[in-house]
Amino acid sequence: MKLDDKGLLIVISGPSGVGKGTVRSALFEMEGHDLVYSISMTTRAPRKNEVNGREYYFVSKEEFLKNIEEGKMLEYAEFVNHYYGTPLETVQKQLELGKEVVLEIDVQGANQVREKMKDAVFIFIAPPSFEELINRLKSRGTEPISVINERVNKAKREIDLAYMYDYIVVNDTVENAADKIIAIIRAEHAKVERTIRKYKEMLEVK
Amino acid sequence: MKLDDKGLLIVISGPSGVGKGTVRSALFEMEGHDLVYSISMTTRAPRKNEVNGREYYFVSKEEFLKNIEEGKMLEYAEFVNHYYGTPLETVQKQLELGKEVVLEIDVQGANQVREKMKDAVFIFIAPPSFEELINRLKSRGTEPISVINERVNKAKREIDLAYMYDYIVVNDTVENAADKIIAIIRAEHAKVERTIRKYKEMLEVK
Repeated sequence: MKLDDKGLLIVISGPSGVGKGTVRSALFEMEGHDLVYSISMTTRAPRKNEVNGREYYFVSKEEFLKNIEEGKMLEYAEFVNHYYGTPLETVQKQLELGKEVVLEIDVQGANQVREKMKDAVFIFIAPPSFEELINRLKSRGTEPISVINERVNKAKREIDLAYMYDYIVVNDTVENAADKIIAIIRAEHAKVERTIRKYKEMLEVK
Repeated sequence: MKLDDKGLLIVISGPSGVGKGTVRSALFEMEGHDLVYSISMTTRAPRKNEVNGREYYFVSKEEFLKNIEEGKMLEYAEFVNHYYGTPLETVQKQLELGKEVVLEIDVQGANQVREKMKDAVFIFIAPPSFEELINRLKSRGTEPISVINERVNKAKREIDLAYMYDYIVVNDTVENAADKIIAIIRAEHAKVERTIRKYKEMLEVK
């Protein structure tokens, strides 16, 4: 029996290099949960095999900017001349259908969501140690040391933002982290703020 | 990796007849968790086979009253001339050891705990419907109708107190309810209020 039949917006964020994407993938492989991805909107051109509405909603720059102006983007960012973001309406529709919408975004994106969706669940994925995070950032590619240093400095600023989240989940193993997120989703659905209204209806003395 | 190495005080409460005891038993049968009972203190005489410090701490009325006066009881109540209650110190010791201490008490007891242990986790066990609760209360024994009616009225007052809890867990099946409590315990350990201090230590940049 569910006292909370709306879905939850689950925001998975954390510093670059922490493995947010891997945790999200593991989460979707777990059973017995009604998780859906949030499909992003972008102004970049579709690549071969990408389908509009599957990988992304592909729109023109004008349309994207109009969406921003009209407050229709839950969050967005600009990378190398292209816009990427999450349309508010599709998220809300999924939530109404009782789906848990998972949004895996960087800490800047999470800040934007925090302002618009007060009752979303904000989960900060933390590295097991700072050294580990630096190693992961360094081992990513063949960038010059200056690029890596800039990335490390950015990660430092990002790990300081954990206090703004509802939960901190250490990514010591991907399975542990995904398991914990599943527990968080179940617990959040039992929270009194989310359940009291339906509880009162259910127990109304006739 | 645990960012919160203290145990949690889990208060399981709810109206009479809802099946708190059954849920608690199912909880202890689940694996992979460090749950301990809180052993109560009482002024009633030990029954045959009862061992001091196992079923109860058996003390004199004088000693019990002295404990109350000195603020050493987390909660207590008087039933048919005997006192029953939870000693604060033994609970705190277990929490320091990282054990999750489970307290299954009535709503009056939970109110007392709420005043003393702000960071305990308060879980309200709810019946699937009010009719179901009445049926359970009626089927308990062979009491006269006046006793049953008094019990139903008490349950009505008790179900109104759910809003004071952190979580509402419907006891539709005992397994579901116990599963949800396990998820709540895991999620609570990841809460930012409980993890941020150790997170900062862990990620301190050397």
